[in-house]
Amino acid sequence: MISVHDRGLLYGDGIFRTLLLRAGKLQQWSRHYSKLLKDCAAIKLPCPSEATLRDDLAVLTAKVQDAVVKVMITRGVATRGYTPPSTPSITRILSLSSIPSFPESFASSGVHLHLCQLRLSSQPYLAGVKHLNRMENVLAASEWNDPEIAEGLLLDEAGNVIEGVRSNIFMIKNNEIITPDLSHSGVAGVQRERIIDLASKHAMVCKIKNISLAELLQADEIFLTNSVIGLWPVRKVASYDAMHHPLTELITELIKEWLLNDPD
Amino acid sequence: MISVHDRGLLYGDGIFRTLLLRAGKLQQWSRHYSKLLKDCAAIKLPCPSEATLRDDLAVLTAKVQDAVVKVMITRGVATRGYTPPSTPSITRILSLSSIPSFPESFASSGVHLHLCQLRLSSQPYLAGVKHLNRMENVLAASEWNDPEIAEGLLLDEAGNVIEGVRSNIFMIKNNEIITPDLSHSGVAGVQRERIIDLASKHAMVCKIKNISLAELLQADEIFLTNSVIGLWPVRKVASYDAMHHPLTELITELIKEWLLNDPD
Repeated sequence: MISVHDRGLLYGDGIFRTLLLRAGKLQQWSRHYSKLLKDCAAIKLPCPSEATLRDDLAVLTAKVQDAVVKVMITRGVATRGYTPPSTPSITRILSLSSIPSFPESFASSGVHLHLCQLRLSSQPYLAGVKHLNRMENVLAASEWNDPEIAEGLLLDEAGNVIEGVRSNIFMIKNNEIITPDLSHSGVAGVQRERIIDLASKHAMVCKIKNISLAELLQADEIFLTNSVIGLWPVRKVASYDAMHHPLTELITELIKEWLLNDPD
Repeated sequence: MISVHDRGLLYGDGIFRTLLLRAGKLQQWSRHYSKLLKDCAAIKLPCPSEATLRDDLAVLTAKVQDAVVKVMITRGVATRGYTPPSTPSITRILSLSSIPSFPESFASSGVHLHLCQLRLSSQPYLAGVKHLNRMENVLAASEWNDPEIAEGLLLDEAGNVIEGVRSNIFMIKNNEIITPDLSHSGVAGVQRERIIDLASKHAMVCKIKNISLAELLQADEIFLTNSVIGLWPVRKVASYDAMHHPLTELITELIKEWLLNDPD
């Protein structure tokens, strides 16, 4: 439970991350902590120290091997009004849930996407940040209820591809990997960053730039990423229909291997 | 206290209103309830019945004469993920706080505004709605800390005037009252609506349309409204500097009189 006066509830004044615990080990913790630092800075929130969160997590995960871990940090309880207190009393909320089980076909054959009608707004002050203002994601996720559709594709007002409702998106064209620029909209995930770094490590071309919907639908391959699902090839979205995803499979194998050797 | 799994906290998935209790009587309750209904519909949230909220409020305000009342409605606790549950278990949160005391000069001589650097994003799905995703207001409110400045002025990306950080805005030019169109950004307050209705009642011209910053700064008078402050004339913002606000004073008197006779 938290106070009904917590600014996390009142204004969505906080940030969060979702990560995996596998065999008792937090996956990509260092990257997640770096993002927490960065996102806190973006909203001018003092970030708890890594040691503090590590201690919290040690208590929470002491008897657990595999789970989804959610870390939320809010600007806590303060006097009434939008103005952030100069010395906030930060709230830390850590929770565990079981790892969701998705159909095996999602990772092997790919997923179908709904093209969302809702367009993401543009806000450079908040773009990239995983903050608690997620009404756009909620409304977008309410657009479909077909269990065959695993995810929604979100564009911005200008028609640029930005992300999935709960994932980042990559396309491959002529052996180049391309992922949308997130300087105006979207959430920059840790798994997205890992893939950009992987490409660089393996001398693959990975570009961060605006992608129009038309461009995406001409892709050779498309895939989605987040810290819980890992990588999902996209089988179908609008007029796009791809049976085979050889490069996506290669990247999936390289990421798995890298995570085994360097889970941090 | 509420659950840390409440969607109001997780995603800002809910709405709220702030209203006054004066001499034991809720001010403009009917209008506030209409807005609750409208805002719930906008985010596809079932709104509690008026009787339910009336009962809650009766208990809460039984021994209180004057207070600020906040009513929040969230989509409650549900299974993990953005997708809204088909039958949500709604959370109602009602709270009281003391009526803030502002310098008397704010209402009599007018206030100084800070012109915010942050530009409001455009989201037609959420525009006008008083939802819990208020990070833009928080960041805007953090831009100044001079106690002489009572409020911040917010523009959208295109440079249109939208609102104050916690208020709506009106300008007067050649005896016409003009207030910004809120179909892409901003929160439509109850006091704003009351003033639009007042103008119609008194055969004054009141237009709802886009207002550029340049147009605002050429206004004869500017004033701010919300349910707690009532009406504040604007003394200064950027190059605008107005000592006298005769029409704003007239509207203030007419609103006071109307509220006395018809507080609902």
